[in-house]
Amino acid sequence: MNRIREDIEALGKIGKDNRGGNSRPALTYQDLEARKHVVDIMKDAGLRVLVDKGANIIGIREGKLKEPFVSTGSHIDTVMNGGMFDGVLGVMGGLETIRQMNEERIKTDFPLALIVFTDEEGNSFMPFAGSKFFTGEINEEELGKLRGKYEDISFRDTFKRFIEKVEGKVELIDRFPFKVKTHMELHVEQGPILDAKKIQIGVVNGIVGVERLWINFLGKQSHAGSTPMNMRADPLIPASETVLKVRQTVGEFNEMVGTVGFLEVSPNVVNVISGKVRLGIDIRSLSEKDMEDATTKIMKGAENSSLMEGVRMETERLVEKPVPCSPKVIGEIKSSAEELGYSYLIMPSRAIHDTQVMASITDVGMIFVPSKDGISHAPQEWTDWEDCDRGQRVLKLALLKELQNK
Amino acid sequence: MNRIREDIEALGKIGKDNRGGNSRPALTYQDLEARKHVVDIMKDAGLRVLVDKGANIIGIREGKLKEPFVSTGSHIDTVMNGGMFDGVLGVMGGLETIRQMNEERIKTDFPLALIVFTDEEGNSFMPFAGSKFFTGEINEEELGKLRGKYEDISFRDTFKRFIEKVEGKVELIDRFPFKVKTHMELHVEQGPILDAKKIQIGVVNGIVGVERLWINFLGKQSHAGSTPMNMRADPLIPASETVLKVRQTVGEFNEMVGTVGFLEVSPNVVNVISGKVRLGIDIRSLSEKDMEDATTKIMKGAENSSLMEGVRMETERLVEKPVPCSPKVIGEIKSSAEELGYSYLIMPSRAIHDTQVMASITDVGMIFVPSKDGISHAPQEWTDWEDCDRGQRVLKLALLKELQNK
Repeated sequence: MNRIREDIEALGKIGKDNRGGNSRPALTYQDLEARKHVVDIMKDAGLRVLVDKGANIIGIREGKLKEPFVSTGSHIDTVMNGGMFDGVLGVMGGLETIRQMNEERIKTDFPLALIVFTDEEGNSFMPFAGSKFFTGEINEEELGKLRGKYEDISFRDTFKRFIEKVEGKVELIDRFPFKVKTHMELHVEQGPILDAKKIQIGVVNGIVGVERLWINFLGKQSHAGSTPMNMRADPLIPASETVLKVRQTVGEFNEMVGTVGFLEVSPNVVNVISGKVRLGIDIRSLSEKDMEDATTKIMKGAENSSLMEGVRMETERLVEKPVPCSPKVIGEIKSSAEELGYSYLIMPSRAIHDTQVMASITDVGMIFVPSKDGISHAPQEWTDWEDCDRGQRVLKLALLKELQNK
Repeated sequence: MNRIREDIEALGKIGKDNRGGNSRPALTYQDLEARKHVVDIMKDAGLRVLVDKGANIIGIREGKLKEPFVSTGSHIDTVMNGGMFDGVLGVMGGLETIRQMNEERIKTDFPLALIVFTDEEGNSFMPFAGSKFFTGEINEEELGKLRGKYEDISFRDTFKRFIEKVEGKVELIDRFPFKVKTHMELHVEQGPILDAKKIQIGVVNGIVGVERLWINFLGKQSHAGSTPMNMRADPLIPASETVLKVRQTVGEFNEMVGTVGFLEVSPNVVNVISGKVRLGIDIRSLSEKDMEDATTKIMKGAENSSLMEGVRMETERLVEKPVPCSPKVIGEIKSSAEELGYSYLIMPSRAIHDTQVMASITDVGMIFVPSKDGISHAPQEWTDWEDCDRGQRVLKLALLKELQNK
């Protein structure tokens, strides 16, 4: 079964950069080459290929019924200097599944759509631009006027460039007009858990929510030599206590992670007691309530620390809610792994995926395969070919369960 | 007694910047104006004025003996946007003392030198450039080739500019050739203690040593979402513990202060677990042993924290030893304050002063007067005129005790 490997390696040669990675932000010339290649191999697999106004590529395999559809897919755009598995595996795993179903002459009740979403990484226009257009969260007007981050061009203009590139091979549509009953995505884990535990398949039970908590601690800037200890209002004291409070608090909840990755000291001079410290906290959990409770606890701790030191606090919160996967789809993926005799782990996705956007219009599920050492968004990103194959087999079995009208 | 006020205000008008402060780094055109003014008022007070190759201005009041000298003085250079009391009070307090001794026709056994040291603040060439030349710690050659920090000019060239400015008014010497038996400096506290405790005079028992401890914590940079809590090596954890350890440890020693004013996180992105955190620690104490013990304790704590988190540590230490004042001079200042009926506090200087350099060649002592709210190196720097006068009176009495051969 070397076709997935061939497909992934072929795409890995398009937009290869001089640091050994793939640099293929959505709708750049590099990505257009990759899109043309994918349209070609979709057509080789006998699919009707649609392109909507969000530049999503949708390969259609007919069913006995006209709708609802079952859909699968992922993305082929990369971050700058990214790896060759992220996104691509989901697209090629879906395509390989369709090829096998064709070879095995499998007829399904429901039609299947293989979707390549636009700009999942958001390195060109916005994260999830394609899936957000697919689900109706943004419209053609809003999308069209977005301007490129690397190239100074509008989405509308680069969309035209794409259409010229695949002229005569695809059918243009406004927006996908059919009902979708289920969406499934195969993806590399992008984390170290499966690899560390030597488990073959991750059955994703949801995509974690993200809480971003920004705190400014405002103290009294003064001389580190001449200011006695009992006359200080040093914002780095409550800030440090908060860093440790985050670590302690997330440990009290199940499957939660929390990080302070941003800490900025002003003026940041060794012999000056700082006047201001800004902290950026990232908390992720599948449970909205847990996230809320943890944040409350951390804020309370920060307030107490600030009070003790005589420091003032300003806070700002940005919350992205967690997205649970459908219990039915989770069950189908789990039983597929069991039937294939693969070891599996029920686990959350702690990275973000198009599937969480699709969740607003349909039932969703995700399948993870191991990422070597958890590395992603880097040239060293790696998933063994056997793991790619296992993921595709689970995807195939789970899709088949959804494609027949039981 | 308004002469000190007039002198300080007159100098405060030279090199006044547009933010309400004084910007008069050593040997800039602003400082040369100030130097000319000081030479003029020294001559008005009947002093012989010498200038050595370190650009130090030395006003001589003869005694019955040719040497040893008693010296006093401070500096008139400022940081950028500094205040009008720092340094200047010590020079003007010495000058006023000489004027009063002249008016009172006091003859002394030992001669008195009023010294204006060059570049105490180090904003032009190097901190203590003048006093280090005076004491022989650096030579003319080394000093001459230093280049300006604000203006691209050598010390030698700006020295020439200074000499032209005061041509005919001063006598050029290589280095001060006489023995100095005692050096005393009157200075504003630059800290909040006297002001907060409503105490009139600070009798300085020493200038604290400074330990600079730099620590790099080296962890494993990774994704804040997909890296499980138990697989992290987050350098901000031991760094935060070390910030708190510094605070805790200095509290266990007498009269010690400790600060983390510098903390730099790399890459400092909210959703990335940092790979590196660099910490700059400043510890000050009058006791070399205490400083050593505290540093050992802090390093031990940092090592334990790093070990727990799986983080590697690199350290670097820079130590400036504490400089004790002479018990004899401390006693003379203390008894002078008592005789004048002023409240006083025996206290260390936690800022650095030319006097600590002078300590390598002679007995030293310092007199502090209150700084309003402890503010210094800022336009808001303020010392009440009555406090300036009190400081000068203590200086006068203490100098007189040293100037007579008992």
